[in-house]
Amino acid sequence: MTVKVAINGYGTIGKRVADAVSVQDDMEIIGVAKTRPNFEAFMAKKKGYDVFAPEDRIKGMEKANLEVEGSIDDMLERADVVVDCTPGGIGEKNKSIYEKAGVKAIWQGGEDHELAGCSFNAQSNYEEAIGRDFVRVVSCNTTGLCRVIKPLDDEFGVNKARVTLMRRAADPGDIKKGPINAIVPNPIKLPSHHGPDVKTVLPGIDIATTAVKLPTTLMHLHTVNMELNSECTAEEVEALLARQSRVRFVGQGITSTAEVMEMARDMNRPRCDMWENCVWNESITIYEGELYFFQGIHQESDVIPENIDAIRAMMEIEKDGTKSVSKTNKAMGI
Amino acid sequence: MTVKVAINGYGTIGKRVADAVSVQDDMEIIGVAKTRPNFEAFMAKKKGYDVFAPEDRIKGMEKANLEVEGSIDDMLERADVVVDCTPGGIGEKNKSIYEKAGVKAIWQGGEDHELAGCSFNAQSNYEEAIGRDFVRVVSCNTTGLCRVIKPLDDEFGVNKARVTLMRRAADPGDIKKGPINAIVPNPIKLPSHHGPDVKTVLPGIDIATTAVKLPTTLMHLHTVNMELNSECTAEEVEALLARQSRVRFVGQGITSTAEVMEMARDMNRPRCDMWENCVWNESITIYEGELYFFQGIHQESDVIPENIDAIRAMMEIEKDGTKSVSKTNKAMGI
Repeated sequence: MTVKVAINGYGTIGKRVADAVSVQDDMEIIGVAKTRPNFEAFMAKKKGYDVFAPEDRIKGMEKANLEVEGSIDDMLERADVVVDCTPGGIGEKNKSIYEKAGVKAIWQGGEDHELAGCSFNAQSNYEEAIGRDFVRVVSCNTTGLCRVIKPLDDEFGVNKARVTLMRRAADPGDIKKGPINAIVPNPIKLPSHHGPDVKTVLPGIDIATTAVKLPTTLMHLHTVNMELNSECTAEEVEALLARQSRVRFVGQGITSTAEVMEMARDMNRPRCDMWENCVWNESITIYEGELYFFQGIHQESDVIPENIDAIRAMMEIEKDGTKSVSKTNKAMGI
Repeated sequence: MTVKVAINGYGTIGKRVADAVSVQDDMEIIGVAKTRPNFEAFMAKKKGYDVFAPEDRIKGMEKANLEVEGSIDDMLERADVVVDCTPGGIGEKNKSIYEKAGVKAIWQGGEDHELAGCSFNAQSNYEEAIGRDFVRVVSCNTTGLCRVIKPLDDEFGVNKARVTLMRRAADPGDIKKGPINAIVPNPIKLPSHHGPDVKTVLPGIDIATTAVKLPTTLMHLHTVNMELNSECTAEEVEALLARQSRVRFVGQGITSTAEVMEMARDMNRPRCDMWENCVWNESITIYEGELYFFQGIHQESDVIPENIDAIRAMMEIEKDGTKSVSKTNKAMGI
């Protein structure tokens, strides 16, 4: 069976999900939807994707010499599942359209948990998504947290996690946002929403998060602190994280998020992305009985393999999460 | 009695200490020492400070048309106390010179605790410095931490403090340092040295710190987490911090370090400095039994009033720390 996948919204996440779907042998892209005829729309066309648009935008697209295959309804008709990659908050409005079309749908972390009723991280709760019509792949930060909290909880028990999320304020191609030279506590009211968001995937975890926005575009950085239920050494934690296929250790002169992303460029991955959590294994420390470490999270791309696994679970073409993760990783080159 | 104060090193800290000494009625500047005839040296002269220089630099200074009063030895001869504001690590080499000159000395946080044997924060351990020959005023970050930890420990008992220090990578006038667009975990090995540095002032406190360098020049930002021994409300913590004269609450549309420093400019303080810890009182939260809040620390200036109080303690012109703090605050306009 080849799953027919539609992408609604072809921006930062949508274009990456489209390319990741394209390299899987059990799914194919039947089209991508854009609202404006910008460079990304023309790039989609050039890559061979059929481009769709909302009914009232088709004329404008064609006037800009962008050939449009049909409306969004036309696209949904051909699809088994649609990955909604529209800006946060917009996706919610599309639910009735997907329901009417009888198509399964995946939303991203910008939407509320309640919209889909199932928040997803492949390594944490794959089985929850099996056969579901609606799933939400959690945000980049929540994905990054689940990837390390889940195995640590399974192995040692997480009594309490405290995380400071240092967020890149804008993506590299974004020229509208700041700050240029400041640190922005955001939200000022503590704790931040990221802790509760982790609980939508891992409800049993006690977690408190604080977050700031920073004048950088490359990656988020997490300072992770955890109280574990069983005593363990930094070496045991390092060995456990080393076994996680979507956690990568960084060292060898990599002292910042800039050098992590420079390495990603040298690896020549699509768009120079870094799909894995990047943990500085040198930072893994047990101090006064508590675990500490730093990890970098590439905000543009870490959720991409999770979207692929979500498709597989929802379509029930693979019931074993571990096997889906391996298959996705192999196809993408993780 | 008017204490005669010499300033060795007239950079970021030295020039500020000189000006703060000048506005006290129980101390005076007898001279400042520079090694290079740069704009800061000329500004010192223009302000009316006598400029001294190392013996072998005097000729170079005079060649640049900067009138030099004499050597550093000449300066020390006229002084009761010297405030060493040379770059971190250099101050250590000056100890023997100060001993030979029979002058009391204050170092800054860039030097090791052992050099002075007494690390100082006015509100935390004023009495320890009384009559001492050598004192080290702790760094900007450590000062900022002591100012909140000490009263919280006195009132509720601090069982454990965990702080993420988000450090400005360079001062506003510094063009040599980075990063421009990255987050730098620094040190990568955890915990950072800031926790042990707090213990040089408050030895009884359990504290773990992590630190990163950021592409910003304005302020440091601390995410503070504390387990307190007695149960209390956020309102009680807010009331306690409100009573600290070197803690300022920020709100009223101030959402970042940039706006804090913009307010400092509007206040028209010398060099637009912000001497107090800036705590977002809206961020003060008790969550799952633990305290959280954000504070901004102006790296260039928060230690300045502490240097003034250290002088007073060492010279025994005021034995009551609270009175010295009030006097310093009043003279500076805090």
